[in-house]
Amino acid sequence: MSKLTIYGDSISGNCLKAKWVATRLAIPFDWIETSVVEAATRTPQFLALNPWGQVPLAVLADGRTLSQSNAIMLHLAEGSDLIPADAYARAKMFEWLFWEQYSHEPVIAVRRFRVKFQKLRDQEIDASLLPKGNAVLARMEEALADSAYFVGDALTLADIALVAYTRWAGEGGFDLSNFPRVQTWIARVERDLGLPPT
Amino acid sequence: MSKLTIYGDSISGNCLKAKWVATRLAIPFDWIETSVVEAATRTPQFLALNPWGQVPLAVLADGRTLSQSNAIMLHLAEGSDLIPADAYARAKMFEWLFWEQYSHEPVIAVRRFRVKFQKLRDQEIDASLLPKGNAVLARMEEALADSAYFVGDALTLADIALVAYTRWAGEGGFDLSNFPRVQTWIARVERDLGLPPT
Repeated sequence: MSKLTIYGDSISGNCLKAKWVATRLAIPFDWIETSVVEAATRTPQFLALNPWGQVPLAVLADGRTLSQSNAIMLHLAEGSDLIPADAYARAKMFEWLFWEQYSHEPVIAVRRFRVKFQKLRDQEIDASLLPKGNAVLARMEEALADSAYFVGDALTLADIALVAYTRWAGEGGFDLSNFPRVQTWIARVERDLGLPPT
Repeated sequence: MSKLTIYGDSISGNCLKAKWVATRLAIPFDWIETSVVEAATRTPQFLALNPWGQVPLAVLADGRTLSQSNAIMLHLAEGSDLIPADAYARAKMFEWLFWEQYSHEPVIAVRRFRVKFQKLRDQEIDASLLPKGNAVLARMEEALADSAYFVGDALTLADIALVAYTRWAGEGGFDLSNFPRVQTWIARVERDLGLPPT
């Protein structure tokens, strides 16, 4: 194998993170659409590649594998301007990356999945997700008070990780119009990444 | 301020990660005991330092702050042998760090908190936590089949992050004797870090 392969599901923000970073950095890759809902991550072929049955999965050009969306992004982006050169700015980027996986994704992405794909009604969904998600978005709104991006004045992996599900928060029942700086930032990052506006 | 200060709660594995890395790397620091249960993270003084009201919080020697346990470890350990020099090994370390925060801590640490500090009985605790935690421990057992540490044959931040709550899994009702390689690894990492055996 001589080219990066990304196994991913296009409805998963976590998977798109890897695609966006590879695209932005002009790293050639093949994308293999792998549907979680249709259990394509549970086939013997896929489990042979990733025993944990998760996407995104990157098969690097040398054939070695890597999982965890933020770990894949960090590996692909090494040495690029998507990772700040300054040690403290880099540490703040890591702070957002871990916050995204611990506090943001399990709320914003999970509620979207319940509403859009499981088609649950409000009363069937964990009632804590709505206030938790609004607190997450409020934290982002506050962080954007002083700068155009999450770490300083340039696009970093922190923005790419956070935009993945924030741009779809409306699909999870969150009202982004309450968070105008977040809305402006989403449009900015989408433009940076060459995505159509949500 | 001319020395690192770590605000942390000694009953929190996340907080101890920062302490262990600073100690291991001989970085001088002051530890300020900050009890979550006693709401010391909610005082006006603490919220002025960290508006999110979380520990661990590092106040660096230059006065700037950093939160998120794994981000603090990464910053303190930069350039040390706790972070692999090889790019792929480093990527695998990141894979474990994100997995720890997304899949391990919310299960193993949360069930321990329910049992030990909230003193809940089994039937009062989310029933999914026990099987999820056993799956987490089984994954670790499998990963340790071929090596003494999680990334290659040396201690890295992956081990420090994972040991923090794994060594206390028994307090959450998990039976570590089902995972003998994990038990041996815990003792190894505790010895490396100069901790008394759990």
